[in-house]
Amino acid sequence: MPEVIVVPFRRIALGNRDEFRQAGAIKAALAEFISTLIFIFAGEGSGMAYSKLTHGGPSSPAGLIIAALAYGLGLFVAVSISANISGGHVNPAVTIGAFLGGNITLFRGLLYIIFQLLGSIVACLLLEFTTGGLEASPLTLSSGVSVWNALVLEIVMTFGLVYTVYATALDPKKGDVGTIAPIAIGLIVAANILAGGAFDGASMNPAVAFGPALVSWHWTHHWVYWAGPIIGAAIAAAIYEIFFMDRSHEAVPVADY
Amino acid sequence: MPEVIVVPFRRIALGNRDEFRQAGAIKAALAEFISTLIFIFAGEGSGMAYSKLTHGGPSSPAGLIIAALAYGLGLFVAVSISANISGGHVNPAVTIGAFLGGNITLFRGLLYIIFQLLGSIVACLLLEFTTGGLEASPLTLSSGVSVWNALVLEIVMTFGLVYTVYATALDPKKGDVGTIAPIAIGLIVAANILAGGAFDGASMNPAVAFGPALVSWHWTHHWVYWAGPIIGAAIAAAIYEIFFMDRSHEAVPVADY
Amino acid sequence: MPEVIVVPFRRIALGNRDEFRQAGAIKAALAEFISTLIFIFAGEGSGMAYSKLTHGGPSSPAGLIIAALAYGLGLFVAVSISANISGGHVNPAVTIGAFLGGNITLFRGLLYIIFQLLGSIVACLLLEFTTGGLEASPLTLSSGVSVWNALVLEIVMTFGLVYTVYATALDPKKGDVGTIAPIAIGLIVAANILAGGAFDGASMNPAVAFGPALVSWHWTHHWVYWAGPIIGAAIAAAIYEIFFMDRSHEAVPVADY
Amino acid sequence: MPEVIVVPFRRIALGNRDEFRQAGAIKAALAEFISTLIFIFAGEGSGMAYSKLTHGGPSSPAGLIIAALAYGLGLFVAVSISANISGGHVNPAVTIGAFLGGNITLFRGLLYIIFQLLGSIVACLLLEFTTGGLEASPLTLSSGVSVWNALVLEIVMTFGLVYTVYATALDPKKGDVGTIAPIAIGLIVAANILAGGAFDGASMNPAVAFGPALVSWHWTHHWVYWAGPIIGAAIAAAIYEIFFMDRSHEAVPVADY
Repeated sequence: MPEVIVVPFRRIALGNRDEFRQAGAIKAALAEFISTLIFIFAGEGSGMAYSKLTHGGPSSPAGLIIAALAYGLGLFVAVSISANISGGHVNPAVTIGAFLGGNITLFRGLLYIIFQLLGSIVACLLLEFTTGGLEASPLTLSSGVSVWNALVLEIVMTFGLVYTVYATALDPKKGDVGTIAPIAIGLIVAANILAGGAFDGASMNPAVAFGPALVSWHWTHHWVYWAGPIIGAAIAAAIYEIFFMDRSHEAVPVADY
Repeated sequence: MPEVIVVPFRRIALGNRDEFRQAGAIKAALAEFISTLIFIFAGEGSGMAYSKLTHGGPSSPAGLIIAALAYGLGLFVAVSISANISGGHVNPAVTIGAFLGGNITLFRGLLYIIFQLLGSIVACLLLEFTTGGLEASPLTLSSGVSVWNALVLEIVMTFGLVYTVYATALDPKKGDVGTIAPIAIGLIVAANILAGGAFDGASMNPAVAFGPALVSWHWTHHWVYWAGPIIGAAIAAAIYEIFFMDRSHEAVPVADY
Repeated sequence: MPEVIVVPFRRIALGNRDEFRQAGAIKAALAEFISTLIFIFAGEGSGMAYSKLTHGGPSSPAGLIIAALAYGLGLFVAVSISANISGGHVNPAVTIGAFLGGNITLFRGLLYIIFQLLGSIVACLLLEFTTGGLEASPLTLSSGVSVWNALVLEIVMTFGLVYTVYATALDPKKGDVGTIAPIAIGLIVAANILAGGAFDGASMNPAVAFGPALVSWHWTHHWVYWAGPIIGAAIAAAIYEIFFMDRSHEAVPVADY
Repeated sequence: MPEVIVVPFRRIALGNRDEFRQAGAIKAALAEFISTLIFIFAGEGSGMAYSKLTHGGPSSPAGLIIAALAYGLGLFVAVSISANISGGHVNPAVTIGAFLGGNITLFRGLLYIIFQLLGSIVACLLLEFTTGGLEASPLTLSSGVSVWNALVLEIVMTFGLVYTVYATALDPKKGDVGTIAPIAIGLIVAANILAGGAFDGASMNPAVAFGPALVSWHWTHHWVYWAGPIIGAAIAAAIYEIFFMDRSHEAVPVADY
């Protein structure tokens, strides 16, 4: 059994010193920064717009639709515009899932995550200025939802997201589905927000939670929005690599990816 | 006339014992399980989210939009991520329609259906935990809608769904339309929910009805959500195979499909 | 000036007797019937669902969104599933626009229109049964909107629709845009409904108006929903053929289209 | 540092006299006129429809969704139908961004902008007639939003839009993403409206602001809707050209573009 678990992760690569000098890694990280900024600006901004329009009213079905469309469409675009430069992660959990599947080196992965988090922070700061001083609001658990409920919720939803990334973008046998991969990746987030958004905010992405938490300095239950997505991403990467990844893929050296 | 009806189903295949040992069939069934789980989690979960946000309030136009988007976008993604592994059925009625058209063997078809139903059940159990104990709600007929109204409604809507599967995914002459097939398959469900959701819940898929019915142990009119979709799928398969399926398709042996 | 107007229509073809015996024309008309049925069922049905959910309440922003999505997504799918069989018209105005541009013969065009109208009627009859006896509601002009306002509104909106058909589907130089043509054709209708739906119902398609008018026997201002779309389609066909149609297209004989 | 800024703009071309005689430039400008007309008609029209349905009520979450869908889907279609003729700008800021990156000549760019503005004006005049005399409403700043807030908001949102145009449409290495480029370009506008629409109307496009401002003769803060988008477009063009544009692209002469 442990062998089975180990198999999908056997191609993990730690990077090498040359990468520090590669323009490619820095450029790709910059693309991740810009994509995450655009994505968080639309998503978090839509929540602030809802608050503005309802004078701080409670969440509602219309608010849920707004959040789902803003995050879903924003992620679709964010993935589209970085797909050819950085692979279109826009999400530390996706980067970690790709790392566990041997599809990105440790160094490059860490660089991606740092720039994704920076993109989230800058998006929140820009939102606080451009909205005339409204506060970015952090993700929170709804009443009646325990931290364990939320943890499993994030695991299940992020599993769906990262499995979608594997099936439509990373799998070499993706074929025609690859053309619409960014749409699928964005819209699984929209669909999941329509289900999970009312319970824990439906992050599926530590960068979605991190920027707002930092600028509002609200860290309650913040670990859930890291642990859940990372566990969900790891399970998706393991299952997809074990059962569905094309065998011929194995021959491709990680360094050339 | 009976001849005409028989023609489209003449390629039905019953499978053979070797299939039990094929990793392919089990892997494909696993992909159906995962896709159906992701699809039902978003769709059924959106109904529970609506209930949470409105404190159990009555259905409304906003609730209808939420259901249509969650099921429609969820199905689009579910089909995309299993298209290259299992053919992306995610629906016992689609599997039966494909079987009647000779596009899947009996053994593989049964395996698909069992795993689709399991995916629906697991999705509902996960929802009941992650929402802090809310109950999955079964599909029901609205007041003023008889069981015969609902049966015909499910037949018409599932006819549209399975006809779409044939025209955009199974027909070898699909061409460029094949690239956007998963989007069309998902969004015909969204469009049909906007029409039929207010009358009988707009299932078009026994797996949509089965999981919630089982975990809430509510079986009233449940047969409608099997009979309607299966009849609709059979009519769509018959009509498409008789009138529109490309002739050159016939030469392809079923086993190689 | 008259010469200029005549130019785009110089390739008009009247069909020939052989067409009566061609299975192709009948099959294509059947595909138009099925596509229009599916489209009208979702669109008109969404209006009846809105009425059910609001107990016959007045139109509202949420109702406008429902109509736009149901008609828009329904048309996208209806075009996708008939594109390879009949060219995916699903609309007498599109058929007339294609005829004026020489892209379909008179006989085949008439056959299409008859089957489109039949699809609309059958969809309405099915809706009246499956909703437990609700009435299909005809398109009407809002208060303050004159018949001339509505006529120009239908002209402008249908111009946009048929121009989109020409640019994304009929133009041989469409390239990659052709892959997403059905999505564009469906969603220009959604966008136009969000603008025009509150004023005259935003038909852009005589088949959208005809079925509900017939089953409810309500013909007030009905001519507007024929004249507007036909004029808009003719203008779009003329402008696109004169200014943008690829010259090399001219060499293709109509009969082979 | 100035060198860095200058680099991406070194391929700027001013056009030549022959262009005045080219049918191509006029035809392309006509395509921009038609596309902008269709886009503004749907977008601005949806605001007038919202006003009609709510009897001039205040903005609301449902109104925000309507605006986002109408502008977003309208732009997607507007880009699709002009992509093969004019490059699908439909926006003076995009044209200026393309000019700064050396992707369009000065003469052709000015022609585009004039025709885009004409399209916006004609759309507004048509809307005022077809709605039975309602007034097109200009973009305005919400209470609590300063002109500097709005300026930065427009810069950030238009940066996202023009960066998307570069990454999905202008970059020669776009690959499969190019097929869905019009969808991404349209939907980043939808996502941004969900965030910024409640604060300054979320223009991202001087043509969106110009037509309504002219026909209602309301010019307060109008400069913000020019300065913001132009600055945002320039920054996006500079960053994309400096860091991400494919080097092999440089060899292509501007005149052949």
